[in-house]
Amino acid sequence: MTFAATVLTLYPEMFPGPLRQSIAGRALEEQKWSIDTIQIRDFATDKHRTVDDTPAGGGAGMVLKTDVLGAAVDHAIALHPDASILAMTPRGKPITQARIRQIATGPGVTLLCGRFEGFDERIFDARPQIEQVSLADIVLSGGEPAALAILDACIRLLPGVMGAASSGTEESFEDGLLEYPQYTRPPEWEGRTIPEVLRSGDHAKIAAWRKQRSEEDTRLRRPDLWELHGGAPGQSASDARQKDKD
Amino acid sequence: MTFAATVLTLYPEMFPGPLRQSIAGRALEEQKWSIDTIQIRDFATDKHRTVDDTPAGGGAGMVLKTDVLGAAVDHAIALHPDASILAMTPRGKPITQARIRQIATGPGVTLLCGRFEGFDERIFDARPQIEQVSLADIVLSGGEPAALAILDACIRLLPGVMGAASSGTEESFEDGLLEYPQYTRPPEWEGRTIPEVLRSGDHAKIAAWRKQRSEEDTRLRRPDLWELHGGAPGQSASDARQKDKD
Repeated sequence: MTFAATVLTLYPEMFPGPLRQSIAGRALEEQKWSIDTIQIRDFATDKHRTVDDTPAGGGAGMVLKTDVLGAAVDHAIALHPDASILAMTPRGKPITQARIRQIATGPGVTLLCGRFEGFDERIFDARPQIEQVSLADIVLSGGEPAALAILDACIRLLPGVMGAASSGTEESFEDGLLEYPQYTRPPEWEGRTIPEVLRSGDHAKIAAWRKQRSEEDTRLRRPDLWELHGGAPGQSASDARQKDKD
Repeated sequence: MTFAATVLTLYPEMFPGPLRQSIAGRALEEQKWSIDTIQIRDFATDKHRTVDDTPAGGGAGMVLKTDVLGAAVDHAIALHPDASILAMTPRGKPITQARIRQIATGPGVTLLCGRFEGFDERIFDARPQIEQVSLADIVLSGGEPAALAILDACIRLLPGVMGAASSGTEESFEDGLLEYPQYTRPPEWEGRTIPEVLRSGDHAKIAAWRKQRSEEDTRLRRPDLWELHGGAPGQSASDARQKDKD
């Protein structure tokens, strides 16, 4: 089955863009996914093909017209009725790896890219199946770079695209923790060595070291994730689980 | 002054990619920013030009060799000694709009893009000026889509690129809150109207409505941001400030 990506944008020439290369590019050639772009401007109804207008109430920038975007969205829904529909907006819910994994197991994804000051809010009232999604707490010039990142994250999880490397059990966020640090040859570089345990060949010890480093780094670097994971500040998750047993 | 973007990557052909279009593309033509790519593979020392090796201690995927990346990083530092250096890694600190704004006021940014299982940890011990930065809590096939998003966010803030629209006082995250919802013509669409207050012409009322919606939406959609902003659950920031005065 081919995962169907559809992007509504004013800049269709941005796609597949970087996704033509490397892992995503190979998967595209192998028809593991497909990409269609829908030019929002094609749904404008006036002779100037207007897609945006000034914000009601005043302010800088321009807002995508809901009548034009609504027609484009309806066209996309008709083409792919079962695809998830995500609007790229900093007002949205932060995207998570768990949501990416859900989307990647589905038939496809439709991504709405705004420009200017974003979307007329009425599109979300009128089409409640649209999820408002935020990539990061930064402001982009449009939704397109966010759409590219979300597509990349989905594509690598499609069956057969990465094989064992995407099995996902030892990646950042998959178990709510950051991944442990990695090392490879040479064994010494600028006087810095690879931790002894990783060269021990003792699989149980290696697994324990990685788990401990994964927990420790999450606690120190991402207290927000650590708290969700159930850890307390200054306490490792192993401690926490041990406590539960006491 | 031209903002100097430098990207260390195994896929230099991904850049400028989507940044050749729209706002970033126009700014590139106007030399408000420049982009150089550094092919990490050019710093490999064996005849096979090897850039990666298996993880010490075992596991799926491949790790970027620290000796090769180290040489590439040193080359980048020599070219742009004053640029911020960011490594794209899910183990990093989440990027924020405040950090983007700092970077955009500087001379440039150097972005390290990993592939496979990422970087050999020793690069960060040996070159402590490298910031480890995470775009989002999702796993990409490589750092390149993250680098594109971060560059886009920086470029739009460069002087003269967006004018008043990027003044930033009324954007999501700039004041720690989500932006208020936007509307534009037509005044009625599918029976849905623009909120009356936005058509009132009363600037004080409009500002108050926007502030209230901005606070309310942040509280409901992003309790994490709301807490950082100093609000309590179920309490608006105006309430909180009022309380402080009581």
